[in-house]
Amino acid sequence: MSEEMKLPKRSEDFSEWYNQLVLRAELADYAPVRGCMIVRPYGWAVWENITAALDRRFKATGHVNAAFPLLIPRSFIEKEKSHVEGFSPELAVVTHGGGEELEEPLVIRPTSETIIGHAYSKWIQSYRDLPLLINQWNSVVRWELRTKLFLRTLEFFWQEGHTAHATAEEAEAETRQMLDVYTDFAVREAAVPVIPGRKSAAERFAGAEQTYSIEAMMGDGKALQAGTSHNLGQNFAKAFEIRYLDKTGVLQHCWTTSWGLSTRFIGAIIMVHGDDQGLILPPRLAPYQIVIVPIYKTDEEKASVLETAQRLRRELVDAGIRVKLDEREGMSPGFKFNDWEMRGVPLRMELGPKDVAKGSVVLARRDRPGREGKSFVPQQGIAAAVAQALEEIQKALYERALAFRQANTADPADYAAFKQAVEKGFAYSWWCGGAGCEEKIKDETKATMRCIPAEDPISGQSAPQAGGAAKCIYCGAAAQEKAIFARAY
Amino acid sequence: MSEEMKLPKRSEDFSEWYNQLVLRAELADYAPVRGCMIVRPYGWAVWENITAALDRRFKATGHVNAAFPLLIPRSFIEKEKSHVEGFSPELAVVTHGGGEELEEPLVIRPTSETIIGHAYSKWIQSYRDLPLLINQWNSVVRWELRTKLFLRTLEFFWQEGHTAHATAEEAEAETRQMLDVYTDFAVREAAVPVIPGRKSAAERFAGAEQTYSIEAMMGDGKALQAGTSHNLGQNFAKAFEIRYLDKTGVLQHCWTTSWGLSTRFIGAIIMVHGDDQGLILPPRLAPYQIVIVPIYKTDEEKASVLETAQRLRRELVDAGIRVKLDEREGMSPGFKFNDWEMRGVPLRMELGPKDVAKGSVVLARRDRPGREGKSFVPQQGIAAAVAQALEEIQKALYERALAFRQANTADPADYAAFKQAVEKGFAYSWWCGGAGCEEKIKDETKATMRCIPAEDPISGQSAPQAGGAAKCIYCGAAAQEKAIFARAY
Repeated sequence: MSEEMKLPKRSEDFSEWYNQLVLRAELADYAPVRGCMIVRPYGWAVWENITAALDRRFKATGHVNAAFPLLIPRSFIEKEKSHVEGFSPELAVVTHGGGEELEEPLVIRPTSETIIGHAYSKWIQSYRDLPLLINQWNSVVRWELRTKLFLRTLEFFWQEGHTAHATAEEAEAETRQMLDVYTDFAVREAAVPVIPGRKSAAERFAGAEQTYSIEAMMGDGKALQAGTSHNLGQNFAKAFEIRYLDKTGVLQHCWTTSWGLSTRFIGAIIMVHGDDQGLILPPRLAPYQIVIVPIYKTDEEKASVLETAQRLRRELVDAGIRVKLDEREGMSPGFKFNDWEMRGVPLRMELGPKDVAKGSVVLARRDRPGREGKSFVPQQGIAAAVAQALEEIQKALYERALAFRQANTADPADYAAFKQAVEKGFAYSWWCGGAGCEEKIKDETKATMRCIPAEDPISGQSAPQAGGAAKCIYCGAAAQEKAIFARAY
Repeated sequence: MSEEMKLPKRSEDFSEWYNQLVLRAELADYAPVRGCMIVRPYGWAVWENITAALDRRFKATGHVNAAFPLLIPRSFIEKEKSHVEGFSPELAVVTHGGGEELEEPLVIRPTSETIIGHAYSKWIQSYRDLPLLINQWNSVVRWELRTKLFLRTLEFFWQEGHTAHATAEEAEAETRQMLDVYTDFAVREAAVPVIPGRKSAAERFAGAEQTYSIEAMMGDGKALQAGTSHNLGQNFAKAFEIRYLDKTGVLQHCWTTSWGLSTRFIGAIIMVHGDDQGLILPPRLAPYQIVIVPIYKTDEEKASVLETAQRLRRELVDAGIRVKLDEREGMSPGFKFNDWEMRGVPLRMELGPKDVAKGSVVLARRDRPGREGKSFVPQQGIAAAVAQALEEIQKALYERALAFRQANTADPADYAAFKQAVEKGFAYSWWCGGAGCEEKIKDETKATMRCIPAEDPISGQSAPQAGGAAKCIYCGAAAQEKAIFARAY
C-alpha cells in the first residue's frame, strides 16, 4: 500500500468499494490487455489455499489431475450444437503461428469439454476403463465485454473436472457429489454459506442436460454463482464418439460430466466478508492467519520486544499456524494495523514493552473492530489460544454471513412483494417452470432464476411439496417447484 | 496399457524407445493440434511431485507465486531488441476476439519477461520495494517445428521466476542461487547428475547478459539442458522503465533475472534412468513408490492374501509412503509386473499364500531386474524396510547415472579425439571463447557448447586455471576457459 487512504464506504458504493479493495489489498491488478487480470502474490496465496482445499477433496473422491492443451481446433467447438452456440461469440482465435497463417484457425480453450472428449474417445475402450475421473487446474479465455477483477475477466483461473461413466445414474451421482464437494468447501473453508440447487434450462451450461450450482449472497444482496456442476448426458459422448464395450460386448456411448470453480470465488470471499476497513479473510484460507505487530520506542524496548516476538512467532509456526511478523522499519504501529486490516489478516497480535513485562499479548480480531474484539492473553500457551481464536473467527464469519442471508431472503406473498424482495436480496418463490415467466421476471426486475434448491434455504428443511395450492409467483399457474430469484453478478 | 508388447531396445533405437515408452507408460499423449501434448494423469503426478519439490525450495529462498496473463500485446515483445529477434519466429498470434478483428494483435506468451516487466514498472517505486521475488507456474507457447513429447512441444508447462534487484551484484547472486536450487533439485530429488555452468554468448537467452544452465547426460550420451537461469542486467528494466528511488533519492534502473525449469525435465528422467522394460522413477518423485501385487489362485487364498496386503498397505501409508495395491481382477501377476515395470514404480512387493504363512514378503527393486534385485523381508517392520530400500534405490540411480556420465565424458587430447568423444558423450575442452570456433565445431561435429562449468566435471575439483599452455581445441589459440561440448536435445 503506497497510500494510506480510506476505501469508499461499503454501504454507500459497494461496487467502487470492491474495485479499490482488490487493488489496495494487492490481491490483483489490471493487465495491459483489456479485461485481463494479474493475480498478485497476496491474491495468489489465497488461491493456492483454495486450490489445496479443493484438490484434497477431489483426490479423496478418486479424481486425478492432468493437463490438456490450451489450443483447440476451431472445428472441435462446432461438434456439439448447443456448445458452439454458447461459446462462439466469446472465442479468442489464433490465426498465425511461427510467422505463417494457419490452415485451420485454433481457439484458446474457453473450457475443455471438446478437447478432453477427443482424448477420452481414444483412451476409453471398455467398461474396465470407467469411470474416468480427471481434473485440471488451468486458465481459460472468454471474450467478455464488461469485466471486473476476479468476477469476470477475459482470462480466468479455475479447475475443470471432466468425468466419463458407464451409466446415466453414475453420471448424475458424480454431478451431485461434486456439487456437495463445492458446498462443503464453501461452508467449511471459506465460511461462505451457499445454496446448492438445479439451474433452469435457460441458465444451463451450453451442452449440458442438467446444471447445478452453488449460489451465495453478496454483501449488497446480489447473488453470485460460485461453482457449477454439469451432467452432460451423452451429448459430448455422441459428438466425440466416446464409447465403451460393456460387459456383454455391446458398444455404448459414455455419460459425461464437468464441473468447475474459479478465481471468481475470491470475489465472493471479498464481497461476503469484507468491511469498510478492507478485506476479512476466513482463517482457513488466509495466507497469514495472524500478524504480529511489535510496538516500541527506544532501542532497548525494540530489542526485548523483538526477541519476544520472534519466540512467539516460532511457537506459532511450530503449531502449524501461518504467521507474519511485521518488522518493517519506519512505519508506525497504527499504519501497520491499517495495512493488515486492509489485507484481511484474521487476527493481530500487539506486543509492546508492557506486554513483555507482564508476559502477555493483546489479540485483536479482524471481524470485530475496536475494543470489543481485543483481549489480553498470556504468552504461556499462546499457540492454543491463537488456534482457538482462529476457530472462533471462522465460525463467527460463517454465522454472520448466514444471518445476513436469512435476513435478506424472503418468501414473498405476491409479485409486488417479490419485486421488493429482489431489490434487497433473494426471493424464494413458486414458479411454473416456464421460460416465459423467467424471461419476464428478468425484464421487469433484473432478477434471474438462480437455482431450485433441494432444501428450503429459509427453514433449512427439505424443499416443500407443491400440492394443489402452489401458484407461480408471476403468472399464477400451477407450480411444481420453488426457486431462488435474485439479481446476480 | 492395452497391449502387452515389448518396447524397442533402448540400445538399438533410443529415439523410438523413448517415444513408445512415453505413450505406453501413459505419461503423455499427442494432442489434435500438431506439436501439442496432453500430459496424462500418471505423467502429471510426476510433475506435481517436481512442482512440490521446487516450490518448497523457491519459498525457502523468499520467493512468492503469482499469475500473469497469457495474452501479451505484440508491441511488448518488440521493446527489447534481442528478445524480439529471438522470439518473433516462434509466436502464436491471436488476431480475433469475440467475433471481431483486434486493433492490435496479441501473442500467447512464449515467456513472460515483457508483461512482468510492465507490471514491475508499476509496482516498484523505491528501494523498499526491492528485491521483488516472484515465480509463476504456467504454460507457454513457442511455435516449434520439430517436436517430441516432453522435450520440445508447442505448448509446455514450466515455472518462470522473475526478480528485480537494486544492484548488479544482487541480480548475479540471485541468478546463481537459482542455478544452485536447480542443481540441488536435480541431484537430490530426481537422482539426475547435472553440470551447472555458464552459457556462451551464442547460447544465451534472448535479452540476457548472462545465461547459466544445468546440463545432464542422457542414456544415449547426448546433453539435455534441464534448467536455465538468466541475469538480464538492465536490458528489460530499460525497455520497460523498471526504476526505483535509491536511498539517496536518485532514480535508478533495476537489475532483473529470470529462471525456468519445465516438463522437459520429465524427458530427462526418462532418458537418464529408463531401461528396456520401461521407465524407472526416482523414489522421491514417483507417484507410487511401491506397488503391492497380490498372488493367489483359490478364493480362500485370495481372502487371506488381500487381507494381509491391505494391512501392509495401511502400514506403509501411515509411514508416509506412496503405495498402490493392485487389486485388478482378471490379470495375471506377471502381466501386472510388466505393467508396473513399464511405469517405473521403484519397488514391487509380491505377496502370495506362502508369504502370508511365513510372515514375509518379497521386495523386488525396479533398478535391478531379476533375482539380484529380490529380497525376502519380514512383514514385521515393513515400513522401515521399504523406506530403506527406497533410499537405496534413490542413491543407486544417482550413482549409476553419474558413473555413466563419467565413463562418457572425455578430456580429448586433440580435435580428432574430440570428434570421437562427442560421438558417444561429452567433451570437456579448452576453448578460445570465439563464436567462430563454436560455430565450426557445431557444423563439423553437431556438438554445441553446453556450458562452462565452475567445477571440473571429471575430477569434481574446481575448474583448472588456464595458464600459458591452454590452447583452444579447435583453433589452437590461447584459451581462458574449459567448456563442455556435446550433441544436444
